[in-house]
Amino acid sequence: MTAPPIALARWGSFHVGGRLVSLSGKPVRELTLNPGGVPARIDFNGTYLAGAMYAQFMIPADCRGRFPLLLWHGGGMTGACWETTPDGREGWQHFFLRHGWATYVSDAVERGRSGFAPFPDIFPGEPLFFTIENPWERFRIGDGPYARQTPLPGNQFPTDRESWLSFMREVVPRFTSTDDWILDAYLALLDRIGPAIVLAHSQAGFFACRAAQERPNLVKALILVEPAATGDPGKAAALVQIPTLVLYGDFIEVDARWPTIRARGIAFAEKIRAGGGTVEVIDLPERGITGNSHMIMMDRNSDEVALLIQSWLAARGFWSEPTSRPSAP
Amino acid sequence: MTAPPIALARWGSFHVGGRLVSLSGKPVRELTLNPGGVPARIDFNGTYLAGAMYAQFMIPADCRGRFPLLLWHGGGMTGACWETTPDGREGWQHFFLRHGWATYVSDAVERGRSGFAPFPDIFPGEPLFFTIENPWERFRIGDGPYARQTPLPGNQFPTDRESWLSFMREVVPRFTSTDDWILDAYLALLDRIGPAIVLAHSQAGFFACRAAQERPNLVKALILVEPAATGDPGKAAALVQIPTLVLYGDFIEVDARWPTIRARGIAFAEKIRAGGGTVEVIDLPERGITGNSHMIMMDRNSDEVALLIQSWLAARGFWSEPTSRPSAP
Repeated sequence: MTAPPIALARWGSFHVGGRLVSLSGKPVRELTLNPGGVPARIDFNGTYLAGAMYAQFMIPADCRGRFPLLLWHGGGMTGACWETTPDGREGWQHFFLRHGWATYVSDAVERGRSGFAPFPDIFPGEPLFFTIENPWERFRIGDGPYARQTPLPGNQFPTDRESWLSFMREVVPRFTSTDDWILDAYLALLDRIGPAIVLAHSQAGFFACRAAQERPNLVKALILVEPAATGDPGKAAALVQIPTLVLYGDFIEVDARWPTIRARGIAFAEKIRAGGGTVEVIDLPERGITGNSHMIMMDRNSDEVALLIQSWLAARGFWSEPTSRPSAP
Repeated sequence: MTAPPIALARWGSFHVGGRLVSLSGKPVRELTLNPGGVPARIDFNGTYLAGAMYAQFMIPADCRGRFPLLLWHGGGMTGACWETTPDGREGWQHFFLRHGWATYVSDAVERGRSGFAPFPDIFPGEPLFFTIENPWERFRIGDGPYARQTPLPGNQFPTDRESWLSFMREVVPRFTSTDDWILDAYLALLDRIGPAIVLAHSQAGFFACRAAQERPNLVKALILVEPAATGDPGKAAALVQIPTLVLYGDFIEVDARWPTIRARGIAFAEKIRAGGGTVEVIDLPERGITGNSHMIMMDRNSDEVALLIQSWLAARGFWSEPTSRPSAP
């Protein structure tokens, strides 16, 4: 079964944000950058542009979303996590494009096409990089360690070896000292795009909440998929005008960390509600959607969860029903 | 003037290649990955998947290229260099898609969405990262140092400050110890895609020639845009069946390094010709196309050069003329 073509009115990419940083005391080196190449004299003193962020946009010809949909990935990932799934299915970017949303897929600062600055003077500390065994447990996929090769019962993540390696090929290093840089870049992205809906996963839940607190007029709705952290509790009032959906997957209660992470997310939601805001928290198993790992957008039932988000957005007036026969499902 | 929409039959991404590397003697750390997050115990011993490569494909509904077109970027860049130009125009990826080519835009290993391994046990040495002053001279854009702010006379690179910073936002660090990893990943890409045409810039000229020497049956044509290095001279015979086009821009003769780099490229072309192969070398100024920097795909006349490549491919039977009114220019 082949999905129909999609017409794009526009597509492309840009980088936003970043800071100019002057460094001195660095070497001047004579380097041959390619085998058989001609040496170049490189002066590593000067002005660096660090902390910029890459975003790729696709605008469907049949645009039905009232605002662009910004997809912000979690830690260890890049924007590629929204594209084709590790087992080769269409991802959430496809789903939302096919439903007529203008999508902006970005790479957080120091990940992917946003690049990093390999100077502790700029990004302190070292980037973390994970073994293929680590997310198996940490992302609520395996029942016990990787060596056991037993998924949690009913788990929806594609755990055949080739899919698992495809997933691990996507994982990139991440710093833990760059939150301010990343937040600044997301603010620059919002300032460039204008009013938008932000769909954020895991680590990006933190950035989405903080960015919405800084730019409450630019974030028209927030969708937080298993946020690893959320906003500034002291500024919960800034979010009361922003319809917010928070999703959690399955196996939360059998995990060592996720009950606490979820409880903190719900406490933050309560703070927003206490100020008069609207936050809907959905535990997927309670809707009969079971087996979801932390990587919901890659799970085999990813389209089912995307449809839940799509319905939530449509019910809040962010999407226009097609008036004629749809060109896409 | 707005360009017309384009219909994509398929689009998406995948990662290929890489190696499994076991590391031991690393720490086990208790880390809080997000502010307000719940600490996780991370064991840095185990198996890493390093050296995989990201590729994004877009397949036009009206496909006219006989083979997919693979776009391989140069050093310090990612696949983003083929997308929107720093001054906001459509890039070569747009151009070739609009002409009906299935495009595959990849990020070389340790660049962009291909990620890097932050362990000297895996990638020796340190990545290089460049100041905003460096490419101004090294890429034949400025007449003298950046501080002088004087482009070479007639230079086509967009040198207004905002475009220059947009360009520098795209630049990412690069290792110099990873050639074998990068070549392996390109071979894995060819093995996955099958017969293809490779268009390579700068550093990737080396990988394109080496990959074609390893997989002469999979590379149906080679387009080398200012290759910084080329193939193994001892295996020039492997390329005699592959139509090859080599392009050089302007200002070669006033540069300290490019006369030598070009002379080496031409010497390699001669080796292929001596074995009976066909290599066409075009110095753009001799075709009346003047002002090109090293970043030809970003220069203001980028479409003019793309059209030259398109015409070369069409003349060699790699492209079918549209039989009806074209849906794209």
